[in-house]
Amino acid sequence: MPPDNPNILFKRRVEDYFKNLQNVICTALETLDGKAKFSQDVWAHKESGGGKTRILQQGSIFEKAGVNFSAITSNLSPTLAARLGVDAQHIFATGISVILHPVSPMIPIAHMNIRYLELANGDGWFGGGADLTPCYLFDEDAKHFHQTLKYACDKFDPTFYPVFKQWCDEYFFIKHRGEARGIGGVFFDYLREDKEKTLLFVQELGNAFAHAYVPIAQQRKSEQWGQREKQWQFLRRGRYVEFNLVYDRGTLFGLETEGRAESILMSLPPEVHWRYNHQPEDGSREALLMKVLKQPRAWV
Amino acid sequence: MPPDNPNILFKRRVEDYFKNLQNVICTALETLDGKAKFSQDVWAHKESGGGKTRILQQGSIFEKAGVNFSAITSNLSPTLAARLGVDAQHIFATGISVILHPVSPMIPIAHMNIRYLELANGDGWFGGGADLTPCYLFDEDAKHFHQTLKYACDKFDPTFYPVFKQWCDEYFFIKHRGEARGIGGVFFDYLREDKEKTLLFVQELGNAFAHAYVPIAQQRKSEQWGQREKQWQFLRRGRYVEFNLVYDRGTLFGLETEGRAESILMSLPPEVHWRYNHQPEDGSREALLMKVLKQPRAWV
Repeated sequence: MPPDNPNILFKRRVEDYFKNLQNVICTALETLDGKAKFSQDVWAHKESGGGKTRILQQGSIFEKAGVNFSAITSNLSPTLAARLGVDAQHIFATGISVILHPVSPMIPIAHMNIRYLELANGDGWFGGGADLTPCYLFDEDAKHFHQTLKYACDKFDPTFYPVFKQWCDEYFFIKHRGEARGIGGVFFDYLREDKEKTLLFVQELGNAFAHAYVPIAQQRKSEQWGQREKQWQFLRRGRYVEFNLVYDRGTLFGLETEGRAESILMSLPPEVHWRYNHQPEDGSREALLMKVLKQPRAWV
Repeated sequence: MPPDNPNILFKRRVEDYFKNLQNVICTALETLDGKAKFSQDVWAHKESGGGKTRILQQGSIFEKAGVNFSAITSNLSPTLAARLGVDAQHIFATGISVILHPVSPMIPIAHMNIRYLELANGDGWFGGGADLTPCYLFDEDAKHFHQTLKYACDKFDPTFYPVFKQWCDEYFFIKHRGEARGIGGVFFDYLREDKEKTLLFVQELGNAFAHAYVPIAQQRKSEQWGQREKQWQFLRRGRYVEFNLVYDRGTLFGLETEGRAESILMSLPPEVHWRYNHQPEDGSREALLMKVLKQPRAWV
């Protein structure tokens, strides 16, 4: 790779940032957990590139936390090319994914992903976002999460947060259930313009994630919960699985480009229940959550 | 509906057979279980038609058994029409689905589905099949299951079993894991020719299902198992979920035509685990199963 090719330099800079962010986030999460540590698997893609998958299991805060970095080059299948609206060709994809499944049903599930894709013809774009999936709703947590992301967005463009918040509500929607996956956050895709500015923006967002999530987990770890709340969490995790396997672009992209299945599917929760036609009791905290998931709110 | 329209009569005859088969199978499964009974939900499709969903839960044999009948008319979306290789138009779809999740990891998960689809232009076809998903392999069970299905197939055409057995191995394949969902059975789709004969064949197959499965469950219910075996079942069920939500045509068809989510997703197991990068011990019974799933066998 000639160092004077500006395009190669850009994708390497993105990749380096994601690699470094993986370290930063893992450190923050280990500190928060206080008990378990991340273990790492380094893997190679069958075509070119690979990744580092880090998993923390059976912690005091996290039942399972995954932080995945990858940078691969793959041949786009015609199907996938059609879905991306481009010609079939080689594609470079680098990204970081964070998925947090806490032990306590009072601490929300969280997800963050930022990715950069670049075609052999030089066309490149960013996508990603961060969103929160509580099993029990605490308004102040939703506000804090959104406020932190909004702050990162506003530094770059006052239109980012409102546009990306709505995009998030639309994207993380489980169509067949008629409900949102969670209380949202931000989501964006195909950001092709002014890539230098966009890189600064995704860096801001990547750095903001731990600030958006850690205080919520610290605040909620002392909340009481029992069997009832844990059972509800198991059911809500079922919806998480449904979204990720039926709709999530990143998951389907990974599976279709024959990425490492264990790394792509690290997003799946450790224990999940499905109960036929379960309906929460009217007026319960569970029913309150469902109401909000069926009618997304403005949090800030 | 004019009773002298032969085409309408055919689809009603198919629908009536499926309705009746639901009763027959539910009776056989209740007798086998000996403890729990099916409860029924009757539902209406948002466009036209509907179904009857029967679920048995927390039985002595079955943790969850679902037997679903439906007959709907829906408008094909352009995406779905393209996948079926037809023009967008109204489609009539009737079918029966059976999905059995036993308590004991020694009793295999089983699935049967037969469906008939007919376009507004009169073009109609059958699809379906039956397959077995053991968590622990007993060769004689696999042989009995395949032999029973082969017998039903051979009555109609000696090429059916070999062709549909291979189709099943190819269809119930979890590409991203490089492994079959189970030890197969038969699968077919787009059977358009000689519909009268094909109806007789699917009736034979529908009637054979209980004979293929019940003796296996009766034989294995006395097998010992403990925590280790149950944990393995929870993990294997994870693969079942992955197949159904990522690849299964019936599931995706149901979700995309906005069928009743609870009925479509009754196939999902009651409790499922995902453990990062779990590998069974070399030489264990679990590893033996995985070997067979990676290399489908001829059972009869």
